[in-house]
Amino acid sequence: MQFKLSAFGDRYATPSGITALMDDLGRAMSGHTDMFMLGGGNPAHIPAVEAVWRQRIGEILADGRAFDTMLGDYDTPQGNTGFLDDVVAFLNRRYGWGISVDNVAITNGAQTALFCLMNFFSGPAVDGKQRRVLFPLMPEYIGYADQALDPKAYTARLPRIEECDDGHTFKYHIDFDTLELSNEIGAVCISRPCNPTGNVLSDGEVAELANRTAARNIPLIVDNAYGAPFPGILFTEATPPWGEHTILTFSLSKLGLPSTRTGIVVGPTQIISALTSMNSVLSLASGGIGQAVVRPLLRNDAILDLCRESIRPFYEAKSLQAQAWIREAFGNDIDYRVHKSEGALFLWVWLKGLPIPARKLYERLKARGVLIVPGEFFVFGLDAPWPHASECFRMTYSQADHHVKAGIDLIADEVRRVYRGAPAV
Amino acid sequence: MQFKLSAFGDRYATPSGITALMDDLGRAMSGHTDMFMLGGGNPAHIPAVEAVWRQRIGEILADGRAFDTMLGDYDTPQGNTGFLDDVVAFLNRRYGWGISVDNVAITNGAQTALFCLMNFFSGPAVDGKQRRVLFPLMPEYIGYADQALDPKAYTARLPRIEECDDGHTFKYHIDFDTLELSNEIGAVCISRPCNPTGNVLSDGEVAELANRTAARNIPLIVDNAYGAPFPGILFTEATPPWGEHTILTFSLSKLGLPSTRTGIVVGPTQIISALTSMNSVLSLASGGIGQAVVRPLLRNDAILDLCRESIRPFYEAKSLQAQAWIREAFGNDIDYRVHKSEGALFLWVWLKGLPIPARKLYERLKARGVLIVPGEFFVFGLDAPWPHASECFRMTYSQADHHVKAGIDLIADEVRRVYRGAPAV
Repeated sequence: MQFKLSAFGDRYATPSGITALMDDLGRAMSGHTDMFMLGGGNPAHIPAVEAVWRQRIGEILADGRAFDTMLGDYDTPQGNTGFLDDVVAFLNRRYGWGISVDNVAITNGAQTALFCLMNFFSGPAVDGKQRRVLFPLMPEYIGYADQALDPKAYTARLPRIEECDDGHTFKYHIDFDTLELSNEIGAVCISRPCNPTGNVLSDGEVAELANRTAARNIPLIVDNAYGAPFPGILFTEATPPWGEHTILTFSLSKLGLPSTRTGIVVGPTQIISALTSMNSVLSLASGGIGQAVVRPLLRNDAILDLCRESIRPFYEAKSLQAQAWIREAFGNDIDYRVHKSEGALFLWVWLKGLPIPARKLYERLKARGVLIVPGEFFVFGLDAPWPHASECFRMTYSQADHHVKAGIDLIADEVRRVYRGAPAV
Repeated sequence: MQFKLSAFGDRYATPSGITALMDDLGRAMSGHTDMFMLGGGNPAHIPAVEAVWRQRIGEILADGRAFDTMLGDYDTPQGNTGFLDDVVAFLNRRYGWGISVDNVAITNGAQTALFCLMNFFSGPAVDGKQRRVLFPLMPEYIGYADQALDPKAYTARLPRIEECDDGHTFKYHIDFDTLELSNEIGAVCISRPCNPTGNVLSDGEVAELANRTAARNIPLIVDNAYGAPFPGILFTEATPPWGEHTILTFSLSKLGLPSTRTGIVVGPTQIISALTSMNSVLSLASGGIGQAVVRPLLRNDAILDLCRESIRPFYEAKSLQAQAWIREAFGNDIDYRVHKSEGALFLWVWLKGLPIPARKLYERLKARGVLIVPGEFFVFGLDAPWPHASECFRMTYSQADHHVKAGIDLIADEVRRVYRGAPAV
């Protein structure tokens, strides 16, 4: 027995890359599998950071009334009014943007904000004109791939690939010479740092994108889930852009609070108002626990210290360690390159001339107890297949060292088996 | 400067009844206004219930590792695997349904589940056929009104109105004689208890709806946000229906946990799988705090005692008290009737022959410091206006007694002014 679904239902009812990824992740995190989990983007358990969240909940619990309010009262669809004020003051202090409370809205995680934004700026308009969201630098975040209702919602550009002289590093660049924003483009979107590659577009490159989108009167959406000012998992300098054509999304997840589902959007009043309306219909209001927990750290800027002293160094060391383990395990017989690691929780590995598609490698590795995410899942909006993506995979280095090390060793072993034509185990 | 939005954007970017209601509510709850808040559906702060949630978070915090996992780990898009197991065991123990884990999914609040369901079962299908969700008993929940993307998504039926002999009570009934489920109907939906009226359809009436939907192979969606088995704000007997054509939504919000945004859907595997896929695209995963807090109370059935001993009696007493204050304040000179209060947090008041539309009364009352929700907001899917709705309003009795009493007194005073033609203050 099957119910008939609408086109909307058929569009979203089909399991997608992000469904599989989050299912793998959730099962691994809940101890349902013995996998080496290099797949999803669960933040690490950093003791110094966890101590802060334990202390904060302890403080709220000790207050009693604050605790009851935190759990028991709905916020406005725009967010908790006190938290909104604190976000505004914090960002103005940090960056001098001069924004007001009409420039900020809270959602149940940044993923939900991006679901709304992707659909606001793609698909048919009431005037019948079709618009598309442009991703100027493939590969991009797997979580965007299936968010848009319209099947022609996305368009994307391939990168210029720089192969660094060290022989095992590379970096993607936007090809600005061929980047044109035609009339059908409704918005431009980047993640910064980029999920999956760890690439961080320079402030100059972002300014160039902002100028071009402003000239077309369309927004530049910048997803700062791993970026500045928090969690600040950046190994290079990067300042979020701001202007009347900029929409910025932030998240508390990579501060170690994914389960609070707290996304923050900073943008023009038109878009904040639209997100607020959509939020009421979609969610009534957003969860208030993450907002309550983080508030005082915004008020006294302690969140910046936490990111600079505890979060960034932790991930930078993990990234360097994972790269060293890869060099050790992959040796010189595997023709591989790792994307320059400038931020986020991931390494993006390119296996040149890999004889099987990366999604087959994923299956073979899963059978051997290691989860990665194959490159194909991070490519969308293209008119033709991009063979390069099938030679790449994303692995997270955020989990426990012995997981990362053992996972890398297993990957190296299986990759060697693949290159020499050995069958799957 | 305005960005051009898609039709999707235009549809959802416009503030709706639920936007205004939740904005009023969130501001009142955060102390931004001095209103007597009889508008939104914030659950009451019940000390015995709040003590349970304080204790639960205290226990999790004392464990340390459990706390870090609760905040810091993503669940699967279907929900926390342990919580799903506990929900299944609890419901099978309570009702003998024989469901499995493939019949349950968690969302960021039941509102989000209903957003998905409304759009799964309405609008154009890929075969071009248009389907609609039928609400068999107007008025219905304001939160559904603007959830559907398709402007012709909803259709609805007017009630048979029973005026009780006591002179000041009435009750709506489904008019089964005229209720036909034509081919365009994709699903039937009711809230039980009904928000806004407090009406509770009998088990027999629900069985009749279930039979009719099963005969058409379409689902019956029953929204149990205030109903059985939790929070159990029911002053009459009611058992949730179950069958292969039934989709049930539940919520932790009215247990006093709205800020955790936890919705639970029980339904056929096809729909659970569809919701899981949609959830990954829309939200990655749902918040895990509500699930972690409630788990042990499901495992040992303590949640049933909490509902029976603390929650239901509290609201039943509040309802009776509010009705007494209405009788006192409205006297015999106002020609009013209150819908029979069988559950939920609301009284639905009918002011016969009210000389102005209820939404004007709302504005006049807001100016005097009382928030209610006018009847017009609870009516949708009709081909013609329904004047009766403009004579009705919803008021919650869940807030502090002095608020409810003072609010009712102000309403009575303003209603008298309206009837005698006095201008707004």
